[in-house]
Amino acid sequence: MAKTVCIVGVGLIGGSLAASLRRVNWCERIIGIDHNAKALNDAQALGIIDAGYASVDLCPDAPDVIIIAVPMSVFRQALVAIKPWLQKCSAITDVGSTKQSVLHDLQEIFGENIPPNFVAGHPIAGREKNGVLAAVDDLFINRKVILTPFEDTADSSLETVADMWEKVGAHVEHMGLQMHDKILAATSHLPHALAFALVNCLSMQNHTSEIFRYAAGGFADFTRIASSDPLVWRDICLANRDELLQAINEFDSSLKTLSTSLENNDGDSLEKLFADAKQARDQFCS
Amino acid sequence: MAKTVCIVGVGLIGGSLAASLRRVNWCERIIGIDHNAKALNDAQALGIIDAGYASVDLCPDAPDVIIIAVPMSVFRQALVAIKPWLQKCSAITDVGSTKQSVLHDLQEIFGENIPPNFVAGHPIAGREKNGVLAAVDDLFINRKVILTPFEDTADSSLETVADMWEKVGAHVEHMGLQMHDKILAATSHLPHALAFALVNCLSMQNHTSEIFRYAAGGFADFTRIASSDPLVWRDICLANRDELLQAINEFDSSLKTLSTSLENNDGDSLEKLFADAKQARDQFCS
Repeated sequence: MAKTVCIVGVGLIGGSLAASLRRVNWCERIIGIDHNAKALNDAQALGIIDAGYASVDLCPDAPDVIIIAVPMSVFRQALVAIKPWLQKCSAITDVGSTKQSVLHDLQEIFGENIPPNFVAGHPIAGREKNGVLAAVDDLFINRKVILTPFEDTADSSLETVADMWEKVGAHVEHMGLQMHDKILAATSHLPHALAFALVNCLSMQNHTSEIFRYAAGGFADFTRIASSDPLVWRDICLANRDELLQAINEFDSSLKTLSTSLENNDGDSLEKLFADAKQARDQFCS
Repeated sequence: MAKTVCIVGVGLIGGSLAASLRRVNWCERIIGIDHNAKALNDAQALGIIDAGYASVDLCPDAPDVIIIAVPMSVFRQALVAIKPWLQKCSAITDVGSTKQSVLHDLQEIFGENIPPNFVAGHPIAGREKNGVLAAVDDLFINRKVILTPFEDTADSSLETVADMWEKVGAHVEHMGLQMHDKILAATSHLPHALAFALVNCLSMQNHTSEIFRYAAGGFADFTRIASSDPLVWRDICLANRDELLQAINEFDSSLKTLSTSLENNDGDSLEKLFADAKQARDQFCS
């Protein structure tokens, strides 16, 4: 059992991890670090952290395990803030949605000497709601957590982080950084971009309120992810810019194939495109 | 109470309407017409039709109300088949997803003399499953049904059809043909096209099975409509070709705006695009 876990960034993911660690009794003590005093107060009121601090300097002791759960745009800042603790921790991990950017941020700060106790990770879980008040203690049950260890990542730190995620109910898998970013661009970042673009496209039409009034079940499902947090998604898109731009290009070609068939009134091609899609989805998402 | 209702095309929608009419006891008798003997047998076994016939000629009496619920590509054929009954019915309606194509088909057959007892209609309801075995008697409860009467549509026929839909629990609204097709292109046909194109795009990547294996909840929601029936959607897209192509073009511009912001690393623009989308969706789909 770890002694003290520190959650840096007590929002939906950080708060849910704290609540989950509490549920399975993985550590003796959970502390939170956040600039946002209300988030810390809420987390303490919910009983998911034992103590909260506005900054690392104010915290009396170094924790054993640190989880950085801040938005991607302030990840580097959070890394700098926990620098005094680095040598003393058995493991430091993060929950960021892109992983090449994490390596890049680490290199900016540490050059070639990336701390061996840093384990890059990404739980594939979330909700459309934000903030610690939306935290739940079952968010990671049966969800995948991808760890993308670097060449010099210490085995013991990797084991500690994997153990933490498995104990809260997640399935841990290992993957290369670039593969992670490519897969996430395709399955998460691209669909979000499409949903945002679709809702914006409909918002700019002449009959917007009519259009949304008639949107049926399929549409609500299809655009649910467009209700996600704009700041979080700005950061994710920027952090995974190259992979996402490539995914958008590939999608563009696929849509172009469809619209060309439609322009040509080519029913056979359309039917084949739709049948291929249905078969792929039914096979993988059943 | 209508005496006899005839469902032409006993599939998911036709079967669900038969089951719904049965539930609310709207008519004395329900008959089905379908080339597919199994569909008729299943419908009779389910108790949602009283008798089934392979063609209009085999049916002893003309019904009071006819609902044409066949795929769009054989709609004209179905219209021709029921021609002998036309004069005798109080109302004929359809359930097609596009309405300008219905007018076009009627004009091809009847020229300027479109039967005044024909009421064009579209229940905005469906399931990803097909066929009469997927029929349910609550499919239309609290769903919108859009009627798009023509200039010469008889009031009494319009009232009969509106009454039928309201009695099975739907909310009836009236709309112009073009407005209907524009709104459906935006809220239903375009999202389907995007979902089909997305799944096809991912299927053609190098790491398809990896990609689908990591697809999380948002992705499954987002692509659910890509599991819809390829034939049905081929017909719908072809029938609403011009409106759908325009909608795809407008979506293209919206996605281009997003990818340009991303290319330029313009975080402010991205954040605004995402915030606008979130606000619009939260406002309309809450």
